[in-house]
Amino acid sequence: MSTRNSPRILLHEVGPRDGLQVEKAVVPIEKKEAWLRDLMASGLDIIQVGSFVHPEKVPQMADTDELFRRLTAGKVSSAILSGLALNEKGLERGLACGVEMFCMGASASETHSRKNTGMGTEESTKRIISAAKTAAAAGKKVQVSVQSAFGCGFEGPISEERVLNMVRAYLEAGLRNISLADTAGHANPAQVERLFGAVLKMDKDIECACHFHNTYGLGMANMFAAMRAGVVSFETSFAGLGGCPFTKVAAGNVATEDFAHALQRERLRVDVNLDRLIAVARDAAAHFGRDLQGFVYKTGAIGKVASG
Amino acid sequence: MSTRNSPRILLHEVGPRDGLQVEKAVVPIEKKEAWLRDLMASGLDIIQVGSFVHPEKVPQMADTDELFRRLTAGKVSSAILSGLALNEKGLERGLACGVEMFCMGASASETHSRKNTGMGTEESTKRIISAAKTAAAAGKKVQVSVQSAFGCGFEGPISEERVLNMVRAYLEAGLRNISLADTAGHANPAQVERLFGAVLKMDKDIECACHFHNTYGLGMANMFAAMRAGVVSFETSFAGLGGCPFTKVAAGNVATEDFAHALQRERLRVDVNLDRLIAVARDAAAHFGRDLQGFVYKTGAIGKVASG
Repeated sequence: MSTRNSPRILLHEVGPRDGLQVEKAVVPIEKKEAWLRDLMASGLDIIQVGSFVHPEKVPQMADTDELFRRLTAGKVSSAILSGLALNEKGLERGLACGVEMFCMGASASETHSRKNTGMGTEESTKRIISAAKTAAAAGKKVQVSVQSAFGCGFEGPISEERVLNMVRAYLEAGLRNISLADTAGHANPAQVERLFGAVLKMDKDIECACHFHNTYGLGMANMFAAMRAGVVSFETSFAGLGGCPFTKVAAGNVATEDFAHALQRERLRVDVNLDRLIAVARDAAAHFGRDLQGFVYKTGAIGKVASG
Repeated sequence: MSTRNSPRILLHEVGPRDGLQVEKAVVPIEKKEAWLRDLMASGLDIIQVGSFVHPEKVPQMADTDELFRRLTAGKVSSAILSGLALNEKGLERGLACGVEMFCMGASASETHSRKNTGMGTEESTKRIISAAKTAAAAGKKVQVSVQSAFGCGFEGPISEERVLNMVRAYLEAGLRNISLADTAGHANPAQVERLFGAVLKMDKDIECACHFHNTYGLGMANMFAAMRAGVVSFETSFAGLGGCPFTKVAAGNVATEDFAHALQRERLRVDVNLDRLIAVARDAAAHFGRDLQGFVYKTGAIGKVASG
């Protein structure tokens, strides 16, 4: 199976951003910092610290700049710290506080784009490309994404051509680290393989990332379909936190520890400290006082169960 | 993707057996009958009505014989009614009450086998083969399974050779409808593809079925891996009910309506009445008064959401 032919599997933890932004209660910065430091120490490749959005619009992310300052000061972890910026103002803030990798994106859904940014897809894509070029010119890693790439809660199906046109625009701007995000959770495994297959054919140096929401129970199946297609970077959230507040139906991401557990069953990414990931997820469930969507933090890893 | 190359996808609903047997409260027979009639009317191919086990051991299944009598009287649905029998006594009861397809199996895990049946794998397999031959001779459809085929909650890993030896014994007895069951939920997609690949190579007329528990969040991903390998029959439970009371860690099956929903997104099995499946799952959640593991019965189908 494809996992055996995929030497590179990068784990990008997005829970501190995509997870915490939808939690009603703002998580205290000390708690966030503790989770982030544990995630950094667990061997994950990239950690998304937060987003640079207006603090009144998303108060859960108001401390992103301060978190970057704390985590980059005297940093020894090799984990790359990413931040989500959706406009020039966000980019400016990110450049000022030590972001190592900028994640930027536009939605393939006209309606989702307008609700999220006040701009349509075309204008939003242009703005993102301009900001991404600035970030790259400043020596930062940059990942650009196509949101709602597999369907939209407002519009329904999104044409493959619309997605490929956005990817083409990114490639023409020299941006080759490209994520397709299933914002509404509409993707299915066959579609995932088709669409990533088409994207990966467009450029030999393209590096693809994926981001799936588990709204209809297909998140993990879609991750494996993406792996088979040749995607190298996988966005997940600890404990399965997540969702998007600006789509009509939203559900969590695939849980980081569930995906790492699945990979390790095939002896992939055994360098990742699964116990530590499980501990963070358990602490998150305790903090929020409810069952979260992850499985493995509840059951324990298989080896641990058998010997327990 | 494989789904496009798999003309046959059979849906085998096992919730009335594998789901209800682990519910603390016995579901009244009238409620079971209503769910079963709805499931039969929804276009699923096979419905597992219940199991023939000792009523004191599993009181939830004490009404299996009566359910078969009610459902087969004047039956017009083309759905095949299956029943689980794990010994000769069960077979006898099933033959007396109108079972159309017998599901029988033995565990590849010595420990699981002994806890479940009081016999080791070898003896249990022999007894099952003998009973299966009797059922086949009586003109019944028969499916034989290897339980704990992908790992065991007690023993940990189960060797592929152990599983293949059981399959070989089934094939030598002329039994070609063979299910591999992931009783403990240990399977991962790469393993699923490898093991089913090896099994399917053993006989050109073999027909494979799969049964996954979602203990570690991989149920749906494993279903798609099985489909890719060439498995034709998929066992699921309405609302994601399920588990096995005799393993150390147990969790639900993949939800029937979630799997049907995923298939229909690719225009497969559009003959199945998804609305009806969702209604049954919702009624089950209402009956038990708690959130069950399925996704789609909570969110609604994608088309319905977009237009809602």
